[in-house]
Amino acid sequence: MKIRFALLKPAAVVAAVLAFVGAPALAQETHRLTLAETWGPNTPILGETTRHMAAMAEKMSGGRLQIRIDSSNKHKAPFGIFDMVKGGQYDMGHTASYYYKGKIPNTMYFTTVPFGMTTPEQYAWFYHGGGMELMEKVYGPHGLLSFPGGNTGNQMGGWFRKEITSVEDLQGLKMRTPGFAGEVMSEIGVAVTNIAPGELFTSLERGTIDALEWVGPALDLPMGFHSIANYYYSGWQEPSAEVQFLINQKTWQSLPDDLQEILRVAMRTAAYDMYTQSTHLNAAAWDKMKEEYPNVTHKTFPPEVIDALRDATMKLLAQEAEKDPLTREIIASQQEYLKRVRKWTEISDKAYLNSVSTVE
Amino acid sequence: MKIRFALLKPAAVVAAVLAFVGAPALAQETHRLTLAETWGPNTPILGETTRHMAAMAEKMSGGRLQIRIDSSNKHKAPFGIFDMVKGGQYDMGHTASYYYKGKIPNTMYFTTVPFGMTTPEQYAWFYHGGGMELMEKVYGPHGLLSFPGGNTGNQMGGWFRKEITSVEDLQGLKMRTPGFAGEVMSEIGVAVTNIAPGELFTSLERGTIDALEWVGPALDLPMGFHSIANYYYSGWQEPSAEVQFLINQKTWQSLPDDLQEILRVAMRTAAYDMYTQSTHLNAAAWDKMKEEYPNVTHKTFPPEVIDALRDATMKLLAQEAEKDPLTREIIASQQEYLKRVRKWTEISDKAYLNSVSTVE
Repeated sequence: MKIRFALLKPAAVVAAVLAFVGAPALAQETHRLTLAETWGPNTPILGETTRHMAAMAEKMSGGRLQIRIDSSNKHKAPFGIFDMVKGGQYDMGHTASYYYKGKIPNTMYFTTVPFGMTTPEQYAWFYHGGGMELMEKVYGPHGLLSFPGGNTGNQMGGWFRKEITSVEDLQGLKMRTPGFAGEVMSEIGVAVTNIAPGELFTSLERGTIDALEWVGPALDLPMGFHSIANYYYSGWQEPSAEVQFLINQKTWQSLPDDLQEILRVAMRTAAYDMYTQSTHLNAAAWDKMKEEYPNVTHKTFPPEVIDALRDATMKLLAQEAEKDPLTREIIASQQEYLKRVRKWTEISDKAYLNSVSTVE
Repeated sequence: MKIRFALLKPAAVVAAVLAFVGAPALAQETHRLTLAETWGPNTPILGETTRHMAAMAEKMSGGRLQIRIDSSNKHKAPFGIFDMVKGGQYDMGHTASYYYKGKIPNTMYFTTVPFGMTTPEQYAWFYHGGGMELMEKVYGPHGLLSFPGGNTGNQMGGWFRKEITSVEDLQGLKMRTPGFAGEVMSEIGVAVTNIAPGELFTSLERGTIDALEWVGPALDLPMGFHSIANYYYSGWQEPSAEVQFLINQKTWQSLPDDLQEILRVAMRTAAYDMYTQSTHLNAAAWDKMKEEYPNVTHKTFPPEVIDALRDATMKLLAQEAEKDPLTREIIASQQEYLKRVRKWTEISDKAYLNSVSTVE
C-alpha cells in the first residue's frame, strides 16, 4: 500500500505513519530503570554480571531499555536491596536472597542450602522442579519478582592453618563463617566469629582466628589467604550459590511485552553466564595459587566430620520447617528433588569424573 | 517538546512522527528467517530447543524476527544442514557439528570428545577458553557462523545384556555405537555395527547386537532398551554433547544490530536451557526406568577397560592432529584447557559429590 500523505489530514498522517512503520507497531519510548546492587564498585564476577545483563538488555531493545546501576558506595545499603526495591526507591536489585533471612526466613532457600544441590541440579529445580513457583510465593506478597541472578559454583569449605582430622579438631576452633553454615558449625562446637572482610587477612595471620571461609579460588585469590594457610578444604555448605535479580512488580507491569521478555532473557542469560565465568576464573585462580604457593594443599573433611555437619544441618532444617508451612513446603520440595536428581548426577558426571580421575 | 502537527506540511509530519516515536529510531520491518533442523518433527528436547529459541526471538523483537522451522520430514536432509545453510537454501540450522566430520574433520571437536570436558567445563572453554574463536576459524571460511545450540549433558556408555569385567569381554562383542566413539571401540576389538534407530530395539532383543549406545535416560526411555538389557553403563565417549545453531553470514549481516543481539542471546539462552531441561528429564527418566524394571543396574566400566579406551582415544586423536594444523590447534587448546579446569572440578563438585555419596 502506498500512502498518499497529501490527501490526509495531519492527525490521519500521524496514525498512518505509526501504522506503517511497524507491523506490529512497537512501543518506542525509552524506559529508564535503576538497579541497586549489594556489591561495591568494580566487584569482579558479581558486578560484571549486572553490567553484562544491562548491556544485553540495552542492545536488544535498540536503546529503549536502559538500566542505571548503583553500587553500594552510592546507595549505602548493601543489605537493604530488598527494602529499596519493595519501597520503589529502586526498580531492580542484584543481591542474594539469603541476606534477608533475618526478616523473612524462607528467603534463605533460594540461594543455597548446606548439603544441597549442585549448580546444574539447582537450575533444574528452579526451572522444572517448582523452584520459580515457590520463589513467587515468597516474593509475590512483597510486590516483588525474583529471578536467578548468577551462580558462583560450588564454594570451598575454607582455609585452615591446621589439618582437620576429626570433629574434636574443630571444637573450639575460632572460625569466621557467616549465615546458616555458621549456625551449623556452632552446633558442632566451632567458635564462630564474624569479622569484617577487610580485617580477615590480618586476623588469620595473627591467629585471632584459626580458619575462615570466603567463596572460592577466584574471589579468594586477591584476599591472599593462600599465603598464610596451607589447607584449602572442599565445601559442604554452599554446593551452589545463586544470587538474584529483584524487580518491583509495578516496574515490571509498566514495561511493554517485548521489553519484559528482553529483560527476562537478559537476566536468565547473565545468570547462566556468571556460572560459566566462575568456572573459568576458579580454575585459573586455583592454578595460580598452587603455582605461587606450592605448599597449598587441597583437603576434604573426613567422613566423621561430614556426618556431624550433615546431622547438624538436618536438625536445624527440621527446626526451621516447624516454624512456618511455606518453609516446610520449600524444604520438602528441595529435598525430594535432590533425592531424584542426585541419582542421575551419580551415574553421569560423578561416575565419569571418578573413572578418569588420574588426570591430576 | 510538544509537536503542533497542524502547523506542519504532511511530509514534515511524517518526519516529525518518525523522529518522535523512536529515540533512537528503530528499524521496524519484519525479518522472516528459515531454519532447518536435523531432527524429525516433535523431537523432544532437541526440537523443543529450536522452538524455544524462535519463540524468545519473536517475543523479544515484538514480532519483527520470525523464524520458520522445518524438521527433517520437510527438507529430507537431516545431515545436509551444513550445506543447505552454506548454500543459502536456509538461513539457519540446528544440528551437531560432528555430523560433518566426513566433509570437514575439524568440525568434530565442537560437539564432544571422548574423555573430554563435562558440560560446565565445555561452556567455560567455548566462552572463555578460546572455543568460540576456534569455531569461527572452522566455520568462517564456509560463510557460516556457529553457536552453541544446547547440551544433552553427560551421555551414558550404553546398554549391555552381559556385565563387562575386562577388555576381553568387549572383544568381538557386537555393538551399535556410531562416530568417533565407534572408531575407538573398534580399536580395542569391539565388532562395531551401524543399525537404523527404528531397528535397534528388535536387534538387541533378538541378539543381532549384544549392546548399544544411544543418548541418556530421557531419550533412551521411550526406546525401551531397559526392558531387555539389565546393565546401564556410565559413559566416557560424550561427557558433554553440545549441538549447534548455524547461520548464513549474509543473513546475519542483513539483520539490524538489535535483532542480531536478540538472536545471539536467544540462541545462547536456549542452549543453556536445553542443558537444564536435560538434567531434569534424565533424572525423571532414570527414576522411572528403575521403577518399571528393578533389575536395571547401573555399572561403571572397570579401570582396565577405561584405560584401554583412553589409550585408543589418545592414539586416534594424535593421528588426527597429524593431518591438519587447525585440528592440532583445536585438540591442543581443548587438552590444555581440560587439564586446568578439571583440577577445579576435582576439588569442587567431584570432592563434594564423593563426600556426600551416601545419598543413594
